[in-house]
Amino acid sequence: MRGRLSIGLLGAGRLGRVYARDLATRIPETRLVAIADPAGTLAEDVAAEFDVPMSYTDPHAMIDDPAVDALVIVSPTHTHRELLLEAARRRKPTFCEKPPALALDEVAAMKSAIAASGMFFQMGFMRRFDAGYAAAKKQIDAGRIGMPLVFKATSRDPFRPSLEYADPKSSGGMLIDMGIHDFDLARWFMGDVQTVAAIGATIAYPELKTVGDIDNAIASLTFASGKLGVVDLTRSGIYGYDISTEILGLEGTIKIGYLRETPVTVLTKNSVAHDTVPYFMERFRDAYTAQLQNFAQNVLHDRTPPITIDDGLEALRIGVAATRAQETGRTVAVADVTYA
Amino acid sequence: MRGRLSIGLLGAGRLGRVYARDLATRIPETRLVAIADPAGTLAEDVAAEFDVPMSYTDPHAMIDDPAVDALVIVSPTHTHRELLLEAARRRKPTFCEKPPALALDEVAAMKSAIAASGMFFQMGFMRRFDAGYAAAKKQIDAGRIGMPLVFKATSRDPFRPSLEYADPKSSGGMLIDMGIHDFDLARWFMGDVQTVAAIGATIAYPELKTVGDIDNAIASLTFASGKLGVVDLTRSGIYGYDISTEILGLEGTIKIGYLRETPVTVLTKNSVAHDTVPYFMERFRDAYTAQLQNFAQNVLHDRTPPITIDDGLEALRIGVAATRAQETGRTVAVADVTYA
Amino acid sequence: MRGRLSIGLLGAGRLGRVYARDLATRIPETRLVAIADPAGTLAEDVAAEFDVPMSYTDPHAMIDDPAVDALVIVSPTHTHRELLLEAARRRKPTFCEKPPALALDEVAAMKSAIAASGMFFQMGFMRRFDAGYAAAKKQIDAGRIGMPLVFKATSRDPFRPSLEYADPKSSGGMLIDMGIHDFDLARWFMGDVQTVAAIGATIAYPELKTVGDIDNAIASLTFASGKLGVVDLTRSGIYGYDISTEILGLEGTIKIGYLRETPVTVLTKNSVAHDTVPYFMERFRDAYTAQLQNFAQNVLHDRTPPITIDDGLEALRIGVAATRAQETGRTVAVADVTYA
Amino acid sequence: MRGRLSIGLLGAGRLGRVYARDLATRIPETRLVAIADPAGTLAEDVAAEFDVPMSYTDPHAMIDDPAVDALVIVSPTHTHRELLLEAARRRKPTFCEKPPALALDEVAAMKSAIAASGMFFQMGFMRRFDAGYAAAKKQIDAGRIGMPLVFKATSRDPFRPSLEYADPKSSGGMLIDMGIHDFDLARWFMGDVQTVAAIGATIAYPELKTVGDIDNAIASLTFASGKLGVVDLTRSGIYGYDISTEILGLEGTIKIGYLRETPVTVLTKNSVAHDTVPYFMERFRDAYTAQLQNFAQNVLHDRTPPITIDDGLEALRIGVAATRAQETGRTVAVADVTYA
Repeated sequence: MRGRLSIGLLGAGRLGRVYARDLATRIPETRLVAIADPAGTLAEDVAAEFDVPMSYTDPHAMIDDPAVDALVIVSPTHTHRELLLEAARRRKPTFCEKPPALALDEVAAMKSAIAASGMFFQMGFMRRFDAGYAAAKKQIDAGRIGMPLVFKATSRDPFRPSLEYADPKSSGGMLIDMGIHDFDLARWFMGDVQTVAAIGATIAYPELKTVGDIDNAIASLTFASGKLGVVDLTRSGIYGYDISTEILGLEGTIKIGYLRETPVTVLTKNSVAHDTVPYFMERFRDAYTAQLQNFAQNVLHDRTPPITIDDGLEALRIGVAATRAQETGRTVAVADVTYA
Repeated sequence: MRGRLSIGLLGAGRLGRVYARDLATRIPETRLVAIADPAGTLAEDVAAEFDVPMSYTDPHAMIDDPAVDALVIVSPTHTHRELLLEAARRRKPTFCEKPPALALDEVAAMKSAIAASGMFFQMGFMRRFDAGYAAAKKQIDAGRIGMPLVFKATSRDPFRPSLEYADPKSSGGMLIDMGIHDFDLARWFMGDVQTVAAIGATIAYPELKTVGDIDNAIASLTFASGKLGVVDLTRSGIYGYDISTEILGLEGTIKIGYLRETPVTVLTKNSVAHDTVPYFMERFRDAYTAQLQNFAQNVLHDRTPPITIDDGLEALRIGVAATRAQETGRTVAVADVTYA
Repeated sequence: MRGRLSIGLLGAGRLGRVYARDLATRIPETRLVAIADPAGTLAEDVAAEFDVPMSYTDPHAMIDDPAVDALVIVSPTHTHRELLLEAARRRKPTFCEKPPALALDEVAAMKSAIAASGMFFQMGFMRRFDAGYAAAKKQIDAGRIGMPLVFKATSRDPFRPSLEYADPKSSGGMLIDMGIHDFDLARWFMGDVQTVAAIGATIAYPELKTVGDIDNAIASLTFASGKLGVVDLTRSGIYGYDISTEILGLEGTIKIGYLRETPVTVLTKNSVAHDTVPYFMERFRDAYTAQLQNFAQNVLHDRTPPITIDDGLEALRIGVAATRAQETGRTVAVADVTYA
Repeated sequence: MRGRLSIGLLGAGRLGRVYARDLATRIPETRLVAIADPAGTLAEDVAAEFDVPMSYTDPHAMIDDPAVDALVIVSPTHTHRELLLEAARRRKPTFCEKPPALALDEVAAMKSAIAASGMFFQMGFMRRFDAGYAAAKKQIDAGRIGMPLVFKATSRDPFRPSLEYADPKSSGGMLIDMGIHDFDLARWFMGDVQTVAAIGATIAYPELKTVGDIDNAIASLTFASGKLGVVDLTRSGIYGYDISTEILGLEGTIKIGYLRETPVTVLTKNSVAHDTVPYFMERFRDAYTAQLQNFAQNVLHDRTPPITIDDGLEALRIGVAATRAQETGRTVAVADVTYA
């Protein structure tokens, strides 16, 4: 395949609009030719904003459209499976935003469909494309800190999500919704996770109890290699959006993350202060773009996808293990998180 | 005027290519319709890269093209005057990269032409559009640090330019070439500069003596308001591209700038380390984009340009004063830097 | 009581020598009048170094000495109980370095003896006297970050201790030896700990397996208040001595700790670097002095000790709970850690 | 000479009391045997505070006292010469706080007396004993940043001194009073200063005009080696006590200084903040101690003093040159600052 990849975008919500902008204007390798979203004029509006020639309210019609070479799925999680299966039937190269689905059985079905069709499929975990995470991985692989011993990750959202969003029925619960990124990083940096223990509580926003979610949690991991890990999550990182990760090795440690948005420091009486990163779009804007560009390049150059449905499946299994561990107070082996 | 602004780009060199990308793909308010550059197939190549419909080797032909609503000049400095005069004759809204010209007389001629034609003209000083500088200006105007007392600026290039580039005949010499940005910031934050004293030397790269340039300099400023300033410049900031500015006020101080490119910190035996910003494109990428977007919005919405030919003229006068001061060892009043 | 407090120091080892210097020269409220240590001429040597009039090889003789008003115990842990009981018999005000003992029964016996004698007793946990920890406590109590939700602590030693030192028979094992400081901080900032879970491994220094100790561990805590905590420990923090603590509250977060010893930053090609804190004496030098000064002031002014045998006992119970949890893979309730 | 050095302290004011504490309690090599101060019971009070056996209101009597081996002068600047001459007559090893005197003729007289007597004399410039400055010097000498090219120094006091203190008749004026430390560092790091230009203004505290002093200044230096330097000074560094110095070399740069007092970072809504260093005693406490200890060791071991009266004289000459340059608006050659 050569020239630009003609993309059809499935989903025109908050993140969908960002993806539309990237695909339409920031990525030389792509041409955004169609947007589909069943919600009112959403697809039409975003298409107009970025000069995209076609828009659909019926996603299936867009998947069928022969002008569409490849698909980017950024619709609500519960629709991923159906859309992916449709794409598999047409063998169109597809990128799908994480998580693949919330039910392990559904993800397993997606995996089977991908394998059966022989299609190109790339899973979305944008942190791996952040300049910081990518540089850290390279340095660790080059031996900069010696053998990795301990993985530590912190993810903090700056405010409570809506109760509707937080509802575990749609989000999977905090340990899956927020933790899946950290669990994917854990696997990327350290290999397979063997066991998970977790504690959690609803202590910042009591109203979350009405939907059955927690707002703070700590998950401890042991890896198949015998190494250790810990992930702490909070929905009440009120000061800003704070994503930080550390890999402690035998000869040093690497920390990834930052907490300043604007390169300004203000010094007033007995105080040195700067601002914080507001939210995920400010933090990962370039990573999102790089991720989609990587997808397009991989399709155009027949490369193997760096992140597969297995990565989505395994990160979800750890999230499910963490959720069970938090609910039962017992350590859960990831191997015991089975699916049909 | 409404819709997108159809831009013709004059100059397809290093920075020209960046402007082409911004105008073609990053700025919703612009459409890049033509690129002109007399050098071989340069215009054609960059046009192809960004799907720009027309390319010219004759800039005048492009300025004449009725499909071109507005012009962006990013050609070599010595061509600015002629191109601007041509644009003025056609009264096409024009953005011009700094410096307007190296000779004050030429800038004065440009100023007259702009005034006579009544055209829209916006001068380029991208630092004012950097998130850090913009936020600092807003905070200072809001009184955050009280009355500004002292302006301090440091500009450091990470390596020696080519002797051809550094030659004062084309660059104006280091105090103009590098200093003009800081002198513009000095005026922006503190008001008119009254006197300049300067010391300079060729101590890092003796070979620069062959073209008559220096590689390190310090310029002291007094402002019309009685306040003080200092600008230090180096072409041998070997560790990275370092642009930092401070405004010390009666109730605090504000520092702008940063020195880290990737959000990674590496800790090894007795060392905590991170990388640096490589060069100006990494540091000011977003500022360049914001600057051109601002130009387009101002033209589309009939707004007054925030930076005018007078800003270019005055910054250049300070640069000329600094150069004379450095050469003579005497304090030079900016008022004594006259032109035809 | 008035004037200076005449102190007898029990223990002239590494930390004992530091305490001797503090008591003899840095604390206006104390006079170091005697040092006792059974090891060769150790007491005599240290006494000579700091102009201390008397030295003993028999600690009991020194405790008996009527010239000694108060005692500071910094001898090996296994001797604490016997020395304390002796001090209690003479009702001499006593400061004892942590941990009080390794066996809970012994600490309980010490607690009984203190209560029975009505003596003044102050437990040593120097971190509470560090300027950073003290300032953080004050700010949290003043509501600066709102209600505390999550306690996070990291303690890293820069190299492996000797196998003899690490042997759990004398050190208690890493979760007690290193963790006791963090567990004390956890109680100080957040109140009583309810349950502990822990994972640990010998992954940095396999030779530690010969004495049965681990070199990395992560302990998760739940507090009686429902809040959460996590402590991670390593003996392989090869880059430097790194003690950092965070308390995340409903309206912000406070971080305590630093990683730079010398106020020097070195910038070389693509690198910004500084040094690290070598070890605990560099990090807590002033805290040790402040702690002893506080002891002397409390005795002189009949004040209640801020840290009691109960604090030592409770921190040890958490350490024991963590050790059991790590060994069994089960969550341990601190209430189940009982003693005679 | 062996054992401890018996010191007589001349001056028991603010800094004198600190020196008394250091000499009496912090420096193993010294014994503070006498304090002299003509002001009321000042000497007596400080002597009582630190168990110093003798106190004098007549400095000359103390200098005569045979129990006094060596002298530390920390009395008001205008008394230095007379006291030093007296010490020279008795050939007692003497340390003198900077500046040696305000009039160059007086310093020259001191220099002659020292030479004539053959006495040991050490000048005080405590910054050279700060861990940061000392480490930087060592690294520069070891070639870490290549050949030094530019010296930059900033000194900021956090508040206005009293008008009485600021009066140039007793302080020498800001460029001498504050700048002398930076001018000494300039010589230490870069060698002899050749010319000085300076601008200054009374813009923060108009009331300083009543005594004829300025509150902000910038001095540009050229070195005999052809290298460049700049020193900026302010009395209105309202946010804290800020002393920072940079040496830019051909292969990197070194920055010395820090702005945080307590190892605590507070993060609240969109803000990351920490405190600042309050004043010089917090910043240079250990440097003052190290400086006096170095003096004692040099005397005890017959070592050459690392800082001599010439260093005091030359730093003062640069300060005088800077003051003249600021007053006249002309560049002043240090060679033209002559004395009887």
